[in-house]
Amino acid sequence: MSKKGRTAIQPTREQNYPEWYQEVIKQAELAEHAPVRGCMVIRPGGYALWENIQRILDARFKETGHENIYLPLLIPLSYLEREAEHVEGFAKECAVVTHHRLVQGEEGKLIPASPLEEPLVIRPTSEMLIGEMFSKWIESYRDLPLLTNQWANVMRWEMRTRLFLRTAEFLWQEGHTAHATAEEALEETLRMLDIYVDFVENTLAIPVIKGEKTASERFPGADRTFTFEAMMQDGKALQAGTSHFLGQNFSKANEITFRDPEGELKHSWTTSWGVTTRLIGGMIMVHGDDDGLVIPPKIAQTHVVIIPLIHKETDEEKLLAYCTALEKKVRGVQYHGRPLSVFVDKREMRSGEKVWSWIKKGAPIRIEVGQRELEAGQLSIAKRNKGHKDFEKQTEDELLATLPMQLDDIQEALFTKAKSFRDDHLVTIDTKEEFYQFFKKGKGFALTHWSEDPVAEKMLKQELSVTPRCIPLDLPAEEGTCPFTGKKSSRRVVFGKSY
Amino acid sequence: MSKKGRTAIQPTREQNYPEWYQEVIKQAELAEHAPVRGCMVIRPGGYALWENIQRILDARFKETGHENIYLPLLIPLSYLEREAEHVEGFAKECAVVTHHRLVQGEEGKLIPASPLEEPLVIRPTSEMLIGEMFSKWIESYRDLPLLTNQWANVMRWEMRTRLFLRTAEFLWQEGHTAHATAEEALEETLRMLDIYVDFVENTLAIPVIKGEKTASERFPGADRTFTFEAMMQDGKALQAGTSHFLGQNFSKANEITFRDPEGELKHSWTTSWGVTTRLIGGMIMVHGDDDGLVIPPKIAQTHVVIIPLIHKETDEEKLLAYCTALEKKVRGVQYHGRPLSVFVDKREMRSGEKVWSWIKKGAPIRIEVGQRELEAGQLSIAKRNKGHKDFEKQTEDELLATLPMQLDDIQEALFTKAKSFRDDHLVTIDTKEEFYQFFKKGKGFALTHWSEDPVAEKMLKQELSVTPRCIPLDLPAEEGTCPFTGKKSSRRVVFGKSY
Repeated sequence: MSKKGRTAIQPTREQNYPEWYQEVIKQAELAEHAPVRGCMVIRPGGYALWENIQRILDARFKETGHENIYLPLLIPLSYLEREAEHVEGFAKECAVVTHHRLVQGEEGKLIPASPLEEPLVIRPTSEMLIGEMFSKWIESYRDLPLLTNQWANVMRWEMRTRLFLRTAEFLWQEGHTAHATAEEALEETLRMLDIYVDFVENTLAIPVIKGEKTASERFPGADRTFTFEAMMQDGKALQAGTSHFLGQNFSKANEITFRDPEGELKHSWTTSWGVTTRLIGGMIMVHGDDDGLVIPPKIAQTHVVIIPLIHKETDEEKLLAYCTALEKKVRGVQYHGRPLSVFVDKREMRSGEKVWSWIKKGAPIRIEVGQRELEAGQLSIAKRNKGHKDFEKQTEDELLATLPMQLDDIQEALFTKAKSFRDDHLVTIDTKEEFYQFFKKGKGFALTHWSEDPVAEKMLKQELSVTPRCIPLDLPAEEGTCPFTGKKSSRRVVFGKSY
Repeated sequence: MSKKGRTAIQPTREQNYPEWYQEVIKQAELAEHAPVRGCMVIRPGGYALWENIQRILDARFKETGHENIYLPLLIPLSYLEREAEHVEGFAKECAVVTHHRLVQGEEGKLIPASPLEEPLVIRPTSEMLIGEMFSKWIESYRDLPLLTNQWANVMRWEMRTRLFLRTAEFLWQEGHTAHATAEEALEETLRMLDIYVDFVENTLAIPVIKGEKTASERFPGADRTFTFEAMMQDGKALQAGTSHFLGQNFSKANEITFRDPEGELKHSWTTSWGVTTRLIGGMIMVHGDDDGLVIPPKIAQTHVVIIPLIHKETDEEKLLAYCTALEKKVRGVQYHGRPLSVFVDKREMRSGEKVWSWIKKGAPIRIEVGQRELEAGQLSIAKRNKGHKDFEKQTEDELLATLPMQLDDIQEALFTKAKSFRDDHLVTIDTKEEFYQFFKKGKGFALTHWSEDPVAEKMLKQELSVTPRCIPLDLPAEEGTCPFTGKKSSRRVVFGKSY
């Protein structure tokens, strides 16, 4: 909160959470709505987060034997037609290319020309294309497992869009694998789910609930869909990523067959799994506060920002020289195997403005250095997850010796805070009345018995905008009764409103 | 060449260069034609090369102050209309999105539905979109220079396509910058050209001629276009990348204005520059031989491959244990700041087959280890740029101590060989007769005086398929006469047939 008592972000989370979210992104210069409907422009601050996500996840994919490939952007309609559920799931939101030339009409206006024989769809996902390729690449059991991934853009024509959370075009990775047995494919599906969960919890500091989707929420064409759901500060759920066991559905649609060691021809078992730029939206919503972005150190573009405080009496040259020397020393410190990222803000701008710009950008550690600090040999250290006036005094030596530890402490504090919030808003509910009351007035997730009844599901969605988010994997089985149907249930399901 | 006297690649370069090229890619499993017309599927071996290109160039872009962003895939037609030359240059090859939904018609056939109010083009390049964004982001001279880059896919609907060299969709990076003065923008244009040239010569080991395009070959909308041209083994030129000084053309089309220190409103000066997956095609064509790919060590995915030679009498367990131990030691060696990449080929396959698969994939160093090598304490080392039977005997200690040096020697040998070839096929020609004879019978580039006459240019293109490739920057000015028009000329231009 600034000294005038106004928060840096207006409105506050309490006043209007969706507007607060847009404003945080704007003030931190992460992204903005593109002039193209439903698309976004990712600015340097936002893209740097995506690059860090890519770097860390990509290394984990490679460690587990996956290789990157690149598939075409466009998919022929005839390919989509091969898997009925898949088409049904995506047909409503496909951008279709129908022409391959422009001609100039009246007053220089451009008009599409040269219609294509077969229209092409901009990939909403690539199961059908990789299926076609797998059917060529796989002949024998020796070719299995085949473990691939691609980093790419995809397009789903959404009507209501929100930066990072839901845009017509988004960036993602999509893993696609083929296996000889159902067991191996399921193992892969769960292995990738675990890699995601580990990354999201330990790097993005977002606690999640790992679970399986109920039948109605499965990926179109999948036998089983696994997910991990995070709770935002408004109590809503964000599906942060998914991992699908596709069974033999896509394998049969694309004739992905192999000879087993006995020479018998079999259909392989496939999986797919993906996370998107949506993870950035989740990070903003889980950690941000009324002064803007709060970035977990392990994913931050800039770990430490040094702000020289220049007043009339300041020996400016000496101060800037000190800051530059300090920058170099900080960069010499390793943090999780890489040099710390540090920036000295020398912009022509009032110090207060600088300070607030970095608070809004969420840099984990801010060092303010003025004449006084220089003379006292003590730096003023502010941490983004504390109050903006909570300075710690540290000598340069203390700072340099303990920086990685201090950053890890911030990382841990963010996770712990988010987890407390999540746990405080995760309630166990056994009656319909309580359930309705909770979702009408409260916020958070409910753990409730569920008989997977489609009529009850439709009712909850219509009346409360609540859906079953997942069947938690880490919750023990428990006999009970579904409060909506009175039928028996063998386990609780997580319910919530969702993004 | 294999022992039967047949080369691993059929046809040879001499017999049919274009088919040799396709076959090298196929045998090395780098990429293949996609089922989507004109597009390619990049396989793991090909994508790993692109990842290395990205990693190295991206670091250089960042060192020189550029930040990565991401712009939307789609561009409204009205944006393209703003710059007349630009439209003219790209209209013929634009893929156009006209609908955003599919419905099922007869027999489940999908039909485009929900036409867009304004059709959208899949970006062939992003000058118009970044122009729109720059006009919002830039207000004052303090916002300049603005240095951005994006790694993305683009689409140009080419009729004749060739893997990596010319495909409808390709991967690239496009840098876009804005500056306060023409001088600064030109300096940036040349700085990026130099970064490209340094990368292509020192990392891809491809010698190039750095130069400026003649007016007819400029990027649509640019004031000046700089290029670097490489000679392939068939003597043809490959334009390997370009850097454009856009003057104020795009700045005026998009109203990119700023207040200078005196408060005056001015148009900024912009640049753009890019390289594409085409670089991989160039690398294949410059270094490949009749046995397949030859990859320069600095860009190779796998530097060293270890092949255990297993015969009847081999103590297989002992041999594999040795190979695994050696692999670990090799991985412990640093090569240009990163651990060496090494692979032990334990596939169930005949040793000869394994050896040839790695020759075709172009791995720089191959270590063959059998019972004999184990007993003698001497490894058999084969280098891809030498004959496949030219083994060097090295002890493990010798090998480990000198591996980086040996790889650098291979790197240098590849560059030297390519440069000799280029220099041998770069001739100075002063008469029209000699020029015609050279391009009808010989192969290579000609350095010839040129008066930039459009009629002569058209003639050369029609009669010889020859175009001016560039005005070399590193060639001294020289007074002379254009052999085609008899007009005076102040410098020689590089002519060649091109990809």
